[in-house]
Amino acid sequence: MTRLLVANDFIEDQAFVADARLKKTGWWAQRMVWFARDGDVLVMTTRPEDAYLDYVTSLTGTRLATLRVVVPPPGRLGSGVLTADRLADAGFRARLRAELDGRAVDQVLSLHPDPAVVDLARFLGAEHALAGHGFIAQGGGSLANSKVVFRAIAGGVGVPLPDGGVCGTRPGAEELITTMLADGPLMLKHDLRSGGRGNEVLSPVPGVDPVGAQRTVVLPDRAAVREYLAERWDWLTGHGQGRFVVERYFPGSQAVFAEFSLTDDGITFAGQGEMVSAPMAKAEIIPAPGLKPDTVAALLEGGEQLCRPLHAMGYRGLLSADAIVTPDQELYFTEYNGRITGSTHIYEIVGRHIVGPDYAENRVLLEIDGWQVPSFQEGVDLLRTSGLGYDRTTRTGVMLVMAFNPSVDSIRYVVVARNLDSAYEQARELEALTGTSPDSPAPDRTSSPPPPPPSGSERRA
Amino acid sequence: MTRLLVANDFIEDQAFVADARLKKTGWWAQRMVWFARDGDVLVMTTRPEDAYLDYVTSLTGTRLATLRVVVPPPGRLGSGVLTADRLADAGFRARLRAELDGRAVDQVLSLHPDPAVVDLARFLGAEHALAGHGFIAQGGGSLANSKVVFRAIAGGVGVPLPDGGVCGTRPGAEELITTMLADGPLMLKHDLRSGGRGNEVLSPVPGVDPVGAQRTVVLPDRAAVREYLAERWDWLTGHGQGRFVVERYFPGSQAVFAEFSLTDDGITFAGQGEMVSAPMAKAEIIPAPGLKPDTVAALLEGGEQLCRPLHAMGYRGLLSADAIVTPDQELYFTEYNGRITGSTHIYEIVGRHIVGPDYAENRVLLEIDGWQVPSFQEGVDLLRTSGLGYDRTTRTGVMLVMAFNPSVDSIRYVVVARNLDSAYEQARELEALTGTSPDSPAPDRTSSPPPPPPSGSERRA
Repeated sequence: MTRLLVANDFIEDQAFVADARLKKTGWWAQRMVWFARDGDVLVMTTRPEDAYLDYVTSLTGTRLATLRVVVPPPGRLGSGVLTADRLADAGFRARLRAELDGRAVDQVLSLHPDPAVVDLARFLGAEHALAGHGFIAQGGGSLANSKVVFRAIAGGVGVPLPDGGVCGTRPGAEELITTMLADGPLMLKHDLRSGGRGNEVLSPVPGVDPVGAQRTVVLPDRAAVREYLAERWDWLTGHGQGRFVVERYFPGSQAVFAEFSLTDDGITFAGQGEMVSAPMAKAEIIPAPGLKPDTVAALLEGGEQLCRPLHAMGYRGLLSADAIVTPDQELYFTEYNGRITGSTHIYEIVGRHIVGPDYAENRVLLEIDGWQVPSFQEGVDLLRTSGLGYDRTTRTGVMLVMAFNPSVDSIRYVVVARNLDSAYEQARELEALTGTSPDSPAPDRTSSPPPPPPSGSERRA
Repeated sequence: MTRLLVANDFIEDQAFVADARLKKTGWWAQRMVWFARDGDVLVMTTRPEDAYLDYVTSLTGTRLATLRVVVPPPGRLGSGVLTADRLADAGFRARLRAELDGRAVDQVLSLHPDPAVVDLARFLGAEHALAGHGFIAQGGGSLANSKVVFRAIAGGVGVPLPDGGVCGTRPGAEELITTMLADGPLMLKHDLRSGGRGNEVLSPVPGVDPVGAQRTVVLPDRAAVREYLAERWDWLTGHGQGRFVVERYFPGSQAVFAEFSLTDDGITFAGQGEMVSAPMAKAEIIPAPGLKPDTVAALLEGGEQLCRPLHAMGYRGLLSADAIVTPDQELYFTEYNGRITGSTHIYEIVGRHIVGPDYAENRVLLEIDGWQVPSFQEGVDLLRTSGLGYDRTTRTGVMLVMAFNPSVDSIRYVVVARNLDSAYEQARELEALTGTSPDSPAPDRTSSPPPPPPSGSERRA
């Protein structure tokens, strides 16, 4: 069994592509290493540093020596993302063939459903090894990652949705936003931007925190709405051609997700958790704490309902259904993401594979972004010398779950603990080693700009 | 049973909206009158002329006196289309309520799935009378009318597709187009423009006719492709944000369609036919002549496969699956249209209802565009005096199937005949009355501009 793992970032989001030029390492896409098994061939944006490869494979049990890492030359957007031109590069393809050394590719796995990966698989004679290749080849991945398509499907299958709509004309947007603002704040969502980068909160009055969004804009009346739309229309619609989502905003809500795996055999539940934003994505708790059993059941049932049309379309892979639980304990679905998210390797590899199949019953996984350390190796060393690193006997402790993020000199980590209090306690101990605190936003994320800093904004990319 | 019929044109297509400003009558949307039954309330762009209302209802057997026609005041695009602002007009809504006179609306039928119609239905307390309202309210109708979404779904469910792909980046488009042109001509399709207005044929050599497209562009090499894309990128992608379809073009193909009805009970076949273009849509033949039984079976099976994901999404209404049959008798699907098309009332009302349930077995319906007459009434009079009008006893003869098109002074008609030769013979007799010919393109359609004339370009809108 030979597998090809392609660590392609989600680049439908044009804003992200612009950011990517500045990020030379593609550290975010290197989470793909968590999924590697013996004999896999990995196509990466850049070669991960040895400290990271050693660390991850020592936890997953994959024999590092059996892996092959192939990195195409930089492309039109540099080396931070695997653009189509890089995957099509003739020299790269020749090296890839050489690394395969005649072995047939039995499975192709990519971070997001990208036609360029189908093209690469076809070149290797392995098109059928990529699940859902027919859908992906014709650009279907975009449908599984569009907030606009999500709203239509969610409305069609009847899962609970926040009030709102999809706007494509300025008069229609003005009418919907003005009407809805009379009843309180709302959120605007760009079709494709991820991690809250495309979201803005609108409020009729000051004092509403923009959780999961870049900022709050105060719009007291129709004239203000009209002025706002005149100013932001190009941004919201991609120069007038796209559409965007307007939905009721519920301050104080809990953000949760449920991921599902869609295969030819059907739809199966994969994992669920909570995303904590302050105001941008800051932490993640798996499984989501404090949910009533009815709420969990509604999350899983609604999530599966959302998967069914995608499955019927021919999408294969992961789908994360995102939802909020309001202070009144109402559950509303807010978007979906059809890709390997920033959560997938946390529940699937860290949780199910390393901690064990009972991870969601007997442990909690607390993932926190932004442990400030000088390098990945020093992070590993600190874990060992402090005794805070993950212990296979007690099945508790800290794992570093992402490659080193050089733009903010930090690492993302997961605490595995018996309960959430204990997890936060361990996180405090860890961060005390380097003088940061997991309870308050990291220093680089206290402002609420546009643009938000890259570290926090990519949790669920 | 009280029904509300909303004659809203398909206006996702922004090019069409611009055209609409010039067309004050909304004649195209008046085909909705064919669907009217006793007691229905019709919302129209403009009030149809009495000659048209009298004629259509005399054929359908609907008692004209029981119908109510309500026309909102002109909106932001004038009176040619039913824009959202017109359907939201307070005075119009008050008149609509008055016409309903306390009757509950049991069914809402619209030409295309438009959130503005859901809003109107909600105002009347009749949201649930509009099938698929949850999907439509959140903009889902666009998904059922997008060539880009079609390609993904078609690729996903595995129906036969012409080679090609969906392009969203200029390097990707250049690569795909250049590679494909090496093997012959191809067609570019704008995501949403209908009736061939968004299509262009690209060919490596001169001499390829642009059937179903605006023009043929000769691009001998990569440099020419690059130059073409630089020039046309904004048009193709809606200023860089949208995507478009590239597909292999097969000269000499037969263009066919199969329409299906999607209801809560499932998917049922509704009708099929052939579209004849020369070069823009010119005529229609129902059922499609000369198809092998295997080809018909493949058309119906593939069409139903395309419907299933749309049904799973929550789309309710009609879906027309369009395909081509190549000179080699290969069937390929090319797009779908989720709306009441220009064909629906031909097979459903003219065919099934008026001619009879055996219309597709014992008769052929030949629809031709562009009979040049001074007015609808004079067309009716000519039918009567010539004896060419439809005869309920022989179940043959001519019906005028659209309102008068004032921009080119013509009417679209259907010949019902026992066979296609006889149908063309009757068409020649009819057009001889006014000196035009059904065998050659009408005088106003001989050029291959942009922009094409509105008469031919709206057949399947």
